[in-house]
Amino acid sequence: MTKLILLRHGQSLWNEAGRFTGWVDIDLSERGREEAREAGKRLREEGIVVDIIFTSVLKRAIRTAWIVMDEMDLMWVPLLCSWRLNERHYGALQGLSKADMVQKYGEGQVHAWRRGYDVRPPPLDPSSRGHPLSDPRYRDLQPDLLPSSESLKDTLNRTLPCWHEEILPHLQKGANVLIAAHGNSLRALVKHLDNIADDDISEVNIPTGIPLIYELEGDVIRERHYLASGEELARAVGEAARVR
Amino acid sequence: MTKLILLRHGQSLWNEAGRFTGWVDIDLSERGREEAREAGKRLREEGIVVDIIFTSVLKRAIRTAWIVMDEMDLMWVPLLCSWRLNERHYGALQGLSKADMVQKYGEGQVHAWRRGYDVRPPPLDPSSRGHPLSDPRYRDLQPDLLPSSESLKDTLNRTLPCWHEEILPHLQKGANVLIAAHGNSLRALVKHLDNIADDDISEVNIPTGIPLIYELEGDVIRERHYLASGEELARAVGEAARVR
Repeated sequence: MTKLILLRHGQSLWNEAGRFTGWVDIDLSERGREEAREAGKRLREEGIVVDIIFTSVLKRAIRTAWIVMDEMDLMWVPLLCSWRLNERHYGALQGLSKADMVQKYGEGQVHAWRRGYDVRPPPLDPSSRGHPLSDPRYRDLQPDLLPSSESLKDTLNRTLPCWHEEILPHLQKGANVLIAAHGNSLRALVKHLDNIADDDISEVNIPTGIPLIYELEGDVIRERHYLASGEELARAVGEAARVR
Repeated sequence: MTKLILLRHGQSLWNEAGRFTGWVDIDLSERGREEAREAGKRLREEGIVVDIIFTSVLKRAIRTAWIVMDEMDLMWVPLLCSWRLNERHYGALQGLSKADMVQKYGEGQVHAWRRGYDVRPPPLDPSSRGHPLSDPRYRDLQPDLLPSSESLKDTLNRTLPCWHEEILPHLQKGANVLIAAHGNSLRALVKHLDNIADDDISEVNIPTGIPLIYELEGDVIRERHYLASGEELARAVGEAARVR
């Protein structure tokens, strides 16, 4: 059976500070690096071999991939970075404190922005310095592909072409694939893989640093499990639900 | 003008211990990591932007690339690993102490193995555990491509296809390319680029950790220089000549 391994990056410096991050290129905290090392060790101890790795163009995901590659002694494995695996774009909320936003707009509005499947936060001004239009990593893309804000639905729609065109062909050829990415790009992928309804996805919380393994035969998913004990998993899922 | 930047990785754990390394996958020492950080800082301070990075499938070169990418804040730039950029294969000498070999075979023989353009060290037994034939990173290659020992000439011959087919097209399209590699794969490339005669290449010593920059117009080299002061460069070249 072929393995697809999903890994959500661990704590970043802004998770720690309680700020909306989205496409802002914030690094892992020391704790986030430790979570990545732990994930790499688990995969290695399980005897899992990875043939190709995908990640976003954001350094907290790339560094997670690097640390895992290092721990697995697989630094030579191809690593491909795609903007389509980026975190959901949080629009004008990026950089702001989650607590401040709750005070300003109320719990209900912030909850809708964070959990509504089809709700976009207020857009980032396209002329602002932090907009993807002025970031060199996106300069070869059509400008109309670049979001000013995204709902989870938008995130799913721009993630799927990467899944179908870039990732799935490797799995179909029998290669084990690791995707090191973000809470919402992975939730989008899991929604697609597990066929989760629009209204139910808000309750799905992917824990950080714990590999989620799908076993496939061709494109058919035969099994899925997290690489962790039930106790570890319960703790990690609880934390993911709290801090997301 | 387009930039080609060559960077030789710094000290590895076996450089430190005076052992022949070749294709054995030995990591950088702490000093080697510091050399890479220094190179990344120099490139960044110079305002140089890199569009694509090539390296070998050996971790001392890959880690050098990673550290440079991190220092330049360009972790998202594509990084391609090719076995064709590996260090020269040192045959049965790999893992052995350079001092012991001088004692056993004499200064003249060891000098010929190390500096003769067309001299191969004794071959590694293809059935040995350390042979590339039993290393998963080479499993997709034709077995007859995999060396049991290489001269510098052999190294040049297997490096050139990567240069012509993979690297040069990017330069021709105007992309700045960084190659993070090894003493001998870079000497091979420099021999080709600077049109150095077979008998003269043994006197060329590429210092570690100091970027060598070629400025190109199309495929024509207009200028080359090291990114260092004359004094730093003299010291580094002297060291490279001593320890190679």
